[in-house]
Amino acid sequence: MRFAVLGTGGVGQAIGAKLVALGHEVTMGARQEGNANAVAWAQAQGPQARQGTFARAAEAGEVVVNCTSGEHCLEALESAGAQNLAGKVLIDVANPLDFSAGFPPSLAVCNTDSLGEQIQRAFPEARVVKALNTMSSEVMVDPALVPGRHQVFVCGDDADAKRQAAALLAEFGWPEDAIVDLGGIEAARGTEMYVSFWLRLYGVLGTGRFNVAVAR
Amino acid sequence: MRFAVLGTGGVGQAIGAKLVALGHEVTMGARQEGNANAVAWAQAQGPQARQGTFARAAEAGEVVVNCTSGEHCLEALESAGAQNLAGKVLIDVANPLDFSAGFPPSLAVCNTDSLGEQIQRAFPEARVVKALNTMSSEVMVDPALVPGRHQVFVCGDDADAKRQAAALLAEFGWPEDAIVDLGGIEAARGTEMYVSFWLRLYGVLGTGRFNVAVAR
Repeated sequence: MRFAVLGTGGVGQAIGAKLVALGHEVTMGARQEGNANAVAWAQAQGPQARQGTFARAAEAGEVVVNCTSGEHCLEALESAGAQNLAGKVLIDVANPLDFSAGFPPSLAVCNTDSLGEQIQRAFPEARVVKALNTMSSEVMVDPALVPGRHQVFVCGDDADAKRQAAALLAEFGWPEDAIVDLGGIEAARGTEMYVSFWLRLYGVLGTGRFNVAVAR
Repeated sequence: MRFAVLGTGGVGQAIGAKLVALGHEVTMGARQEGNANAVAWAQAQGPQARQGTFARAAEAGEVVVNCTSGEHCLEALESAGAQNLAGKVLIDVANPLDFSAGFPPSLAVCNTDSLGEQIQRAFPEARVVKALNTMSSEVMVDPALVPGRHQVFVCGDDADAKRQAAALLAEFGWPEDAIVDLGGIEAARGTEMYVSFWLRLYGVLGTGRFNVAVAR
């Protein structure tokens, strides 16, 4: 399958590499073609990997994964072009982190709105699924790094898009019963605000190699 | 030991009953003496249980547990009296839930502040420990209701107060290694914002009888 991975940071590189390893074709999108991170990543990944502008990547992808930094998401997606997102599953992995006051960051949007909802509102024809934003990038693409039973959460307004996202998570190694559907895209408020808690756990544990499990 | 439990709702009743069952003396505090919930609760609990105003309860307690509803916390604690809180461990179980727009509630304070911090700022001589606010009241006082390994989180600026709170959590049935210290009271932003996530899980699971475990 053809994927667009928007964003050239650690999350985009990890997800892009996993997709390539699974046999998919990936175009990594950046603000400008020739982004050094994207070029180096594409060269390391081989012929299934390409790089280009956000627009070129989004046009090439059948599914788009948003791994841009929270503060630039809407601008990046605008640059990708609404017409290149329309009708497509848009997996939103980003968190609206605001580092302006240092670590741990606060959230640029929360409580009565969320980045996931902002993206869905701005691109009503995209089929937004919020997913994977509750863990470090290494755990996203290799859940077995964390022992035992633990979960990944999805939400979005399009049931078929959530099914496609869940199938991709299964390819990433997530057991079917570890994929929890929290409902509509409004639930992104919950998974994004959870990150404030995750950041404190990260501070105490000194590693991002953990995840939460729902005990019941 | 003598405890003040401020608040007459489900959380205050559950924690108060647990404390009585453990052999402690509990005064349940309400805005006014003779609060129907508090009177009924005290009668059901027997001679170790009393009720009275917030001030009378706080005066009687060596440790104060804040179980008032988030929107009324600061007013209730003001009514309890700073002099009755000074030097005491104040375990803050409350969440700043705002139900004005229905369910799930939003938070009245979050992100760059928290209810726990507001309380510590308003009552600088109280030794505030945020704890137990990440689960339903039945799980707070009976962690074995949820099978397996799962955690309770504490934070606060006073290390000795956190040790006392942890000892109380151990009395409640929490294994020592299930009590996670997240640091200073600023970390209350994390555990309070987590509640937004908890509420979505609650909506999906249809029960409050769950908790999170940190897998690592």
